[in-house]
Amino acid sequence: MERSGTRIKAVMAEIRSRIASRIYMPGTRLPSVRAQARAMQLSVSTVLEAYERLAAEGIIASRRGSGFYVTGPAAPLALTEIGPRLDREVDPLWVSRQSLEANASVLKPGCGWLPPAWLYEAGMRRALRSLARADALELTEYATPLGHPGLRQYLSRRMAVSGIEAVPERILLTESGTQAIDLICRFLLEPGDTVLLDDPCYFNFHALLKAHRVQVIGVPYSPNGPDMEKFDAALREHSPRLYITNSGIHNPTGAALSPVTAHRLLKLADSSDLVIVEDDIFADFELSPAPRLAAFDGLARVIHIGSFSKTISASLRCGYIAARGDWIESLADLKIATSFGGGRLAADVALRALTDSGYRRHMETVRLRLAEAMDKTVARLKAIGIEPWLLPPAGMFLWCRLPHDMDAAAIARTCLADGVVLAPGNAFSQSLSARDFLRFNVSQSTDRRVFDVLARALASAQA
Amino acid sequence: MERSGTRIKAVMAEIRSRIASRIYMPGTRLPSVRAQARAMQLSVSTVLEAYERLAAEGIIASRRGSGFYVTGPAAPLALTEIGPRLDREVDPLWVSRQSLEANASVLKPGCGWLPPAWLYEAGMRRALRSLARADALELTEYATPLGHPGLRQYLSRRMAVSGIEAVPERILLTESGTQAIDLICRFLLEPGDTVLLDDPCYFNFHALLKAHRVQVIGVPYSPNGPDMEKFDAALREHSPRLYITNSGIHNPTGAALSPVTAHRLLKLADSSDLVIVEDDIFADFELSPAPRLAAFDGLARVIHIGSFSKTISASLRCGYIAARGDWIESLADLKIATSFGGGRLAADVALRALTDSGYRRHMETVRLRLAEAMDKTVARLKAIGIEPWLLPPAGMFLWCRLPHDMDAAAIARTCLADGVVLAPGNAFSQSLSARDFLRFNVSQSTDRRVFDVLARALASAQA
Repeated sequence: MERSGTRIKAVMAEIRSRIASRIYMPGTRLPSVRAQARAMQLSVSTVLEAYERLAAEGIIASRRGSGFYVTGPAAPLALTEIGPRLDREVDPLWVSRQSLEANASVLKPGCGWLPPAWLYEAGMRRALRSLARADALELTEYATPLGHPGLRQYLSRRMAVSGIEAVPERILLTESGTQAIDLICRFLLEPGDTVLLDDPCYFNFHALLKAHRVQVIGVPYSPNGPDMEKFDAALREHSPRLYITNSGIHNPTGAALSPVTAHRLLKLADSSDLVIVEDDIFADFELSPAPRLAAFDGLARVIHIGSFSKTISASLRCGYIAARGDWIESLADLKIATSFGGGRLAADVALRALTDSGYRRHMETVRLRLAEAMDKTVARLKAIGIEPWLLPPAGMFLWCRLPHDMDAAAIARTCLADGVVLAPGNAFSQSLSARDFLRFNVSQSTDRRVFDVLARALASAQA
Repeated sequence: MERSGTRIKAVMAEIRSRIASRIYMPGTRLPSVRAQARAMQLSVSTVLEAYERLAAEGIIASRRGSGFYVTGPAAPLALTEIGPRLDREVDPLWVSRQSLEANASVLKPGCGWLPPAWLYEAGMRRALRSLARADALELTEYATPLGHPGLRQYLSRRMAVSGIEAVPERILLTESGTQAIDLICRFLLEPGDTVLLDDPCYFNFHALLKAHRVQVIGVPYSPNGPDMEKFDAALREHSPRLYITNSGIHNPTGAALSPVTAHRLLKLADSSDLVIVEDDIFADFELSPAPRLAAFDGLARVIHIGSFSKTISASLRCGYIAARGDWIESLADLKIATSFGGGRLAADVALRALTDSGYRRHMETVRLRLAEAMDKTVARLKAIGIEPWLLPPAGMFLWCRLPHDMDAAAIARTCLADGVVLAPGNAFSQSLSARDFLRFNVSQSTDRRVFDVLARALASAQA
């Protein structure tokens, strides 16, 4: 009895594994009971029992006289389910969820946002009170297809300051910066297309592109922007459709695109018909602005996106896309088809908060606090043997190397058990070439406990 | 010179047409200049000039020594671009945009939402004032992956009243009802899959499914729900993956699913492994509740979705999905990957508005006003020869037949010129079998001018 129980489980495990790795997709017909029995050298009754138990679990289903089929949905997106087994600590979705689910007592130096206390709480309160007194239409209507005209006008003026010419009709409001990129991907990409990313890059880009079933090629990032030789080689070899990057402050390295690199990148893009998405969400953190690809290019092949969740409040979902007029029209159609009206409420709150006289002071305070936190964090990390790859001119992030070639994922696992959520380098690296790196958010690294826990973890790793 | 100009334009038009109908997708290599010249029996120089003009427009691009390629993005989603040429008045995206862009002086009996004055303005104001006084975390944090726990608990209790057992962990908050369905489609469907829709159905389902590149089969809708014989036949013939429908009040017919039909539908679904999405956004409009598929089925193969944009405010973007626990986890991952955090602000406002003691009274008033408006609208339509297909027990919509087999799209075109936006039947019908139908929103049909303009349009159509 026991032995056949083990065999039944073996069959179930084999089927489960093929489903989890997406070899069997929903609707796939399983091998017949007889064929599977032959393949695994087991009895038909063992395989049948295994299939019936899986069917009882709802993972497969039998169809009128035609066999067993995989039921929906397809296996989850988590990278850990597919290809070479990755530690979940470097799985973008797992890392995101750890940070989003952690309660207030857990320290989150690995997360990508400012602590609530640093955000624009006063501005949010004022905006909500003001909106509570607004006229009825503001409170009850759908937004127009492109989104709140006042906010688009504001964005148009703001982009002009960066040298980007975008009339309000070339701006589309979205739910978030990530949704902006997602819409663009749905619009431009076919499954099997190739997309270029920086290596390392914001880890959620990996999860997003995985949902789009495209091939991803990483181009190593240098202190001045992407490595131009390798970028050129990638264009020749892979004919990518799209390149997604940060302007201003690079996530995770904190580096800034140099004017020379920006110029060369655009020349290369021109000769290979590459579309570039420039994610500008850290714009307001800069002390002195780096070049914007959209400014050099005039929104011909560059699409410029951003949001306000990093500077006003993460509870406010409001992002934007600036692009060629015909693309904006098509993106608006796609937005209507897939989520109907946009969030007028969020745009109204965002506009009030941004045009509030306190916003400028708020961001000055944020930049100052970040600069102080950056200095302190660099010093504390140096004291335990951790060095930054470069010293960023501004922003939240420090991209740091562990000593002695340690495994950052293992260190992260240890620290998690002690209530500290870290962001190990390989979550950011397509090519898994950042095994000994960690990204620190200096605004979330002010508590001494971060370094005590980390020091302990380093010590036991070396023991 | 003139004749060659015409020939050049002919080549350009041919290429444009193939791009617009998606025969040439972005990245497609055009026939060589020589091959195209042969095919069109024109000179190489004519074709080259045409290609170069298209390249100057940015529609195609030449690549280093390998020819001309179509540039992104793919042709727009509007149905008018593809397949048999449809009047744009029956193009879901065009109809949606007309309603969303119309200013207050334009009458919109064809739109799918209540007038701002009927929505819960007082509740929105109170909710915003209350939120302005809330604690800092509510104002500045990302939502947890599944979304605001308090709102999910509220939804769990509310669903229990309908007989649907969904613990809060089986509920995921989304940006909107449409986005909920979009996430489910991304999760469950592969391009080329088949999806069943009611015929007629909410027209934005068509636009949404087009974005997913699936085959859509319509099942005629009867006064008791989908035609069960035709549903059974569609299951056998097409093996669809998914069926999307309204529970409660059907859009556009106003019909309600009968218990007998619900039971039969689920039995058929069971034997063919169909997943059902039940869109419940009109739940609060019902006077006496129709059966919910999710209640009969226990969320095994039924996914239950809804939102608050119809009853509180269209400016508030907050929807939800209730489904099996493992699907909810995967959908949450997909939501994080494609739009990162959810809108905590919207959920906070929605929860306050829903649990405000005024909400119940608000909805009672809405139901009363709708019943009155329904009676008046039926009478006014009858007076000009327009009859409802059935008299709905509740809700906003009246699905009506024009007299003398008139073309509703043509009537809609005429009325638009007079400032009245109508919704012609074929926008709702996959099989284009509702040519002489119109959907009226009774809450937007209270102005006499609607019927004066319509009567004039009918009269000139018969002249």
